[in-house]
Amino acid sequence: MHVSLVTTALADAFHQVRDQSVRLCSGLETEDFVVQPMADASPPKWHLGHTTWFWETFVLIPNVPGYRVFNDQFNYVFNSYYETVGRRTLRTMRGNLSRPTVAEVYRYREYIDRHMNRFLTENELADDLQSLVVLGLEHEKQHQELLITDIKYTLGHNPLFPALDIPVTEHTSERPGTSVVIPEGVYTIGYQGNDFSFDNELGVHKVYLNETALAGNLVTNADYLAFMEAGGYGQFQHWLADGWAWVNATKAEAPLYWHKLDGGSGSGQWHNYTFAGLEPIDLNAPVCHVNFYEADAYARWRGLRLPTEFEWETAALQGTLNWGQRWEWTASAYLPYPGFKTVPGAVGEYNGKFMSGQMVLRGASVATPPDSVRATYRNFFQPDKQWQYTGIRLVNA
Amino acid sequence: MHVSLVTTALADAFHQVRDQSVRLCSGLETEDFVVQPMADASPPKWHLGHTTWFWETFVLIPNVPGYRVFNDQFNYVFNSYYETVGRRTLRTMRGNLSRPTVAEVYRYREYIDRHMNRFLTENELADDLQSLVVLGLEHEKQHQELLITDIKYTLGHNPLFPALDIPVTEHTSERPGTSVVIPEGVYTIGYQGNDFSFDNELGVHKVYLNETALAGNLVTNADYLAFMEAGGYGQFQHWLADGWAWVNATKAEAPLYWHKLDGGSGSGQWHNYTFAGLEPIDLNAPVCHVNFYEADAYARWRGLRLPTEFEWETAALQGTLNWGQRWEWTASAYLPYPGFKTVPGAVGEYNGKFMSGQMVLRGASVATPPDSVRATYRNFFQPDKQWQYTGIRLVNA
Amino acid sequence: MHVSLVTTALADAFHQVRDQSVRLCSGLETEDFVVQPMADASPPKWHLGHTTWFWETFVLIPNVPGYRVFNDQFNYVFNSYYETVGRRTLRTMRGNLSRPTVAEVYRYREYIDRHMNRFLTENELADDLQSLVVLGLEHEKQHQELLITDIKYTLGHNPLFPALDIPVTEHTSERPGTSVVIPEGVYTIGYQGNDFSFDNELGVHKVYLNETALAGNLVTNADYLAFMEAGGYGQFQHWLADGWAWVNATKAEAPLYWHKLDGGSGSGQWHNYTFAGLEPIDLNAPVCHVNFYEADAYARWRGLRLPTEFEWETAALQGTLNWGQRWEWTASAYLPYPGFKTVPGAVGEYNGKFMSGQMVLRGASVATPPDSVRATYRNFFQPDKQWQYTGIRLVNA
Amino acid sequence: MHVSLVTTALADAFHQVRDQSVRLCSGLETEDFVVQPMADASPPKWHLGHTTWFWETFVLIPNVPGYRVFNDQFNYVFNSYYETVGRRTLRTMRGNLSRPTVAEVYRYREYIDRHMNRFLTENELADDLQSLVVLGLEHEKQHQELLITDIKYTLGHNPLFPALDIPVTEHTSERPGTSVVIPEGVYTIGYQGNDFSFDNELGVHKVYLNETALAGNLVTNADYLAFMEAGGYGQFQHWLADGWAWVNATKAEAPLYWHKLDGGSGSGQWHNYTFAGLEPIDLNAPVCHVNFYEADAYARWRGLRLPTEFEWETAALQGTLNWGQRWEWTASAYLPYPGFKTVPGAVGEYNGKFMSGQMVLRGASVATPPDSVRATYRNFFQPDKQWQYTGIRLVNA
Repeated sequence: MHVSLVTTALADAFHQVRDQSVRLCSGLETEDFVVQPMADASPPKWHLGHTTWFWETFVLIPNVPGYRVFNDQFNYVFNSYYETVGRRTLRTMRGNLSRPTVAEVYRYREYIDRHMNRFLTENELADDLQSLVVLGLEHEKQHQELLITDIKYTLGHNPLFPALDIPVTEHTSERPGTSVVIPEGVYTIGYQGNDFSFDNELGVHKVYLNETALAGNLVTNADYLAFMEAGGYGQFQHWLADGWAWVNATKAEAPLYWHKLDGGSGSGQWHNYTFAGLEPIDLNAPVCHVNFYEADAYARWRGLRLPTEFEWETAALQGTLNWGQRWEWTASAYLPYPGFKTVPGAVGEYNGKFMSGQMVLRGASVATPPDSVRATYRNFFQPDKQWQYTGIRLVNA
Repeated sequence: MHVSLVTTALADAFHQVRDQSVRLCSGLETEDFVVQPMADASPPKWHLGHTTWFWETFVLIPNVPGYRVFNDQFNYVFNSYYETVGRRTLRTMRGNLSRPTVAEVYRYREYIDRHMNRFLTENELADDLQSLVVLGLEHEKQHQELLITDIKYTLGHNPLFPALDIPVTEHTSERPGTSVVIPEGVYTIGYQGNDFSFDNELGVHKVYLNETALAGNLVTNADYLAFMEAGGYGQFQHWLADGWAWVNATKAEAPLYWHKLDGGSGSGQWHNYTFAGLEPIDLNAPVCHVNFYEADAYARWRGLRLPTEFEWETAALQGTLNWGQRWEWTASAYLPYPGFKTVPGAVGEYNGKFMSGQMVLRGASVATPPDSVRATYRNFFQPDKQWQYTGIRLVNA
Repeated sequence: MHVSLVTTALADAFHQVRDQSVRLCSGLETEDFVVQPMADASPPKWHLGHTTWFWETFVLIPNVPGYRVFNDQFNYVFNSYYETVGRRTLRTMRGNLSRPTVAEVYRYREYIDRHMNRFLTENELADDLQSLVVLGLEHEKQHQELLITDIKYTLGHNPLFPALDIPVTEHTSERPGTSVVIPEGVYTIGYQGNDFSFDNELGVHKVYLNETALAGNLVTNADYLAFMEAGGYGQFQHWLADGWAWVNATKAEAPLYWHKLDGGSGSGQWHNYTFAGLEPIDLNAPVCHVNFYEADAYARWRGLRLPTEFEWETAALQGTLNWGQRWEWTASAYLPYPGFKTVPGAVGEYNGKFMSGQMVLRGASVATPPDSVRATYRNFFQPDKQWQYTGIRLVNA
Repeated sequence: MHVSLVTTALADAFHQVRDQSVRLCSGLETEDFVVQPMADASPPKWHLGHTTWFWETFVLIPNVPGYRVFNDQFNYVFNSYYETVGRRTLRTMRGNLSRPTVAEVYRYREYIDRHMNRFLTENELADDLQSLVVLGLEHEKQHQELLITDIKYTLGHNPLFPALDIPVTEHTSERPGTSVVIPEGVYTIGYQGNDFSFDNELGVHKVYLNETALAGNLVTNADYLAFMEAGGYGQFQHWLADGWAWVNATKAEAPLYWHKLDGGSGSGQWHNYTFAGLEPIDLNAPVCHVNFYEADAYARWRGLRLPTEFEWETAALQGTLNWGQRWEWTASAYLPYPGFKTVPGAVGEYNGKFMSGQMVLRGASVATPPDSVRATYRNFFQPDKQWQYTGIRLVNA
């Protein structure tokens, strides 16, 4: 990854990022920090501890002589998936841990922040260390997005549907976008700037694209409701085989967080859970919390398709698409770019080992930290996941 | 059930029982109230809410004109298994609920306590209502025992093994017991007093017993360790088929909460988790946290057997057995006494519908509220459960 | 077990039993010998091989000097659950084995029969060996009953519902029985004859019974249909908690093998699969293929109950009950009689290790070999099993 | 698909293909036709019936006036995954069906062959019908390959490891291949001929490739053994996250069908099951029965990678690669080519709906019908599948 910050700027950036993680949790009750209603939705307490553990494990322990570990049990509790650094709590068990308490996790954060501050301000950092710190910041920003989606999952699956004061605007009215036509030809893909990017965006390379037109705007709730009302969830024709199996196994009939109130009679009205509580669907908002199977089925029902990640990146760089509210499912599986190599050590486990069984999402969402947004960013999730702020853009061809 | 309390005494008893539930939780962190590391171990928050819901649902709503429900969503959250009173949160999902918060649950308790106090002190209660209140008290006392065992499960499965200040003495040194010989003959079984008992103890009836001798004391940790060191967990001969399947599926090799520290080499020492933290096994203490399969296998390894619940009750009434520290697995399946009938309505779901697939335990444990201890009490659990304070008494024949 | 056969009679009995196993399979297609549509329903090929393996392993190998094993791989294939004699094919995998072929299994049978014949006719057998041979015969007769029920399961779950020519009359019209009243008192239970019985029937002992009246006849299909039509499968009140969980998990709404034809409209007629194919329910036949949960729920719906195994044995010995068409679920869990001991070695695994989690059935069924029928016989199955010829007798009190 | 056969040639081709299916099964015992030891490995009886049902359902019923269905139950039994043509036997249940018998399935084949013969020889077929017949032939040839792999799975998982006389040479010594270097540039991908191809190969389109060199030969057993002996199955570094989870869940330590004999001591020798029985590994043969995770981990351990399907196709067309013995895992997920459209109706379910969660394999195997081999063929399986004849080719860059 490329880095261009000087060290004092690094320390500033560090504190800004760390503060933002805490700010996102400021409206939570202590209890909200603890639970994990599905394996993917880690407890906020865990996110706060894990991001802290990252700094301790990858920056402080290897680089600060005489550094004393805050609590040597925490490696077991807060490691996520780094096999290189030892055994860890099973991901599905994070919600079973009442200890360390939230207060202890905050003390852990303060301890690490203090040591990190000294490390960042009292040393002249070599380039590779600067890169590592920047990676840690991006890592924590990724967890900030997960904090938002995981908190929403917990509250949105509570029978009380509590509202939450959190700095996220789940739908912003933006300028309408304009459709982009890409002429047939060879295009260059991948991150070419001098700032930070993840390893999976590097490996600038050429692709050959056919002529394509991408819709300027995302599919709306009104659009998607038409699919539902036409019986889309009951017609196998629109679905991939795996998607149809998912529909049947989960009895899905709407996006995540949608509930038909006073239904039963069939005459109920669709509501969805947002941080404001349970409220009627906003028909003009871009549809949200659909998985890849739903996005693909919707497109097929329309006789259209999803863009590939290469079409998306090419079109987004033209500047007229309206994007940034929803992560957009692409038709591309998450695979390495030509020449991709994992770096040695634990940091090399960051992206590469997940290049199997997942689909690429492009763009950004209302939950993405603004300074992490870039057109080359490759997000990825399994095709059945709905709990991110995910939406649909169509290729009109 | 038989009841003999006057109403003012009832109000006093009510407050004592309610206070005790709160007292048991006084050393907990907020986070400890929330988690549910296995389906059987409900969150303390849920126990506090559920026992409160019991009063509201079965006493206040039907009997107090104009009573206003505290929160009509709570029926869904805090119903346990009463099909009669509507749908409920899946038992395995209780640990996913961050709301209502602990503070709200305590407000709920205060609201109900206030209304119950008025109900108990301002009315002349008919006999059946008095019985219902007494049942509610016994119900809450049962949940007090579960609070203790469920809290222990949560903390004992936390990698930090935190100690807890809680009014439970997990092993008391008592006078040694004396073996009891029961001569062959006809004996009378069942509760014959005038105080409270559960419906499953009623139906006084005769049984015919062969001559039997019950050990005066429980099997100790030292005794049980001999079984472990003789390879008992690796020899199918001692085990019931279901028990052997359990050993193989769980890779069990010791009672619950036992850990061999600095082991690996095989030279480690056995410790167990108690509310004092992880500490070396007390060889003189009665073995604890074994399930029926383990109790049965141990007895078989010794060439002995477990008592039936009828032998136990008959022997216990003789007065020389040392009992009350551990629930004692019996050789009896949990089945109805002759003439057993469930009462109509939700309260009738209390005991009868569980008379399948469970074994009877007799006695009491260090976690049992002292005034609920009686020789006719029939406790019951599935044969694979270990998380109660369960132990082993042998029949020397 | 007690035995009183002289050796020539033993050889005769041996050949009769062995021939009957083959006769039961004479109408099968080769394919029918192979499949295993549920774990409990072993392939006929396996039954034929396993019963043969029993003779080889427990009689020939230990007692015939110089005996040459037919195929030393067969121990792995045909052992059922005897841990003492080594590893075995997982029970659920028996239906995955196309080899050995049916023809090879028959060759195996012939080889063993020839050696057994020589062993039985050329030796003076000691008492314990005679007992072992008799046990082997009873073992094979038990598998004859399983052959019938397992074949029925396979054909009854085939979409073609093929008829089969097999010597089983699934419903015989018999003389009506007469209700039996047992006066309160002490009764003797257990096998007291001089012929064969299983170890679990021995240990003659006294029990104390209250006054009870057992119905002279079994519950009929017409009776049971009334329960179904009254909505019995949809009302939790009648069911044990485990039973209600079973109803919900399996969506059961009728006994096994029942199908409503031209239904959908709700106007269809109930048929059931028998060896004659799919045919309308015979309203006068005793209901069949219900599990314990269903039997118990039906009794509860009627405001009655099932007999205990002790009531049943006492009543059956009076001689006026009409029994023998259906195994009758009792209210008794399968537990050891006083003084029960397992014999050492593999034969000791026969009955004792299953004394957990199962219910006792008494009587016999149309599939039981007639000379194995006796009033003291203790059959046992898990409470959710339906595939035996099981029925319901009520206690009218 | 493109077709260029005249009708008499079609009838000839039809009989050749149909005969070959039967020929492949000629060495089987009746029992071998029935079992299904894993969901993917359908019983041979089912393959024979299903391919026949295809002709009846898609050709005869819609196109032959007055055609009488052989058995209208067979649609339920022999439909595979075509939702369009009604409900079907669950895929995992095929091995539970003893009926129809093998003999009936052969009668079914003869009946259909007779009607197909008349249809093919007595009619002038329109182009679309000719295309449909050719698709049916290719469909049956695909099932011929599955017949071989599924039979191998059944016999290779039988503890007797029976040999089988079947016309498959599992390893052929061929001329060594020569490495192919592809210069950077734009290449054309997709089937451009006039004979048959599947819909997923059409949509000829351009891709941009970087310079790449593909190995001329496949990885051998000797090569792969080096990976095993270096501890490859125990080192997470080489594995994708999903692959590592697969290793841990299955405790894999070698390719499918490999067994270490007289092992335990660790000194045993690796054998593998082939149609000749269990025999020592042939070190010079191309490694077989590895899944994508294993292929990818092996490549990563070597510091190399797998080719993309586009690199493979481009290189194979150069003519010097040695290919055709093993399906070769590529680094490409199975996704639609630009412009891919599913055709309407059941035939449209053939390929498109599986474009999710699978990886592309290129080449052909010793089990592939020779006239179905072509460089543009896109085979696809989930990344954990091992039971096809799958191997590894490396990119030396």
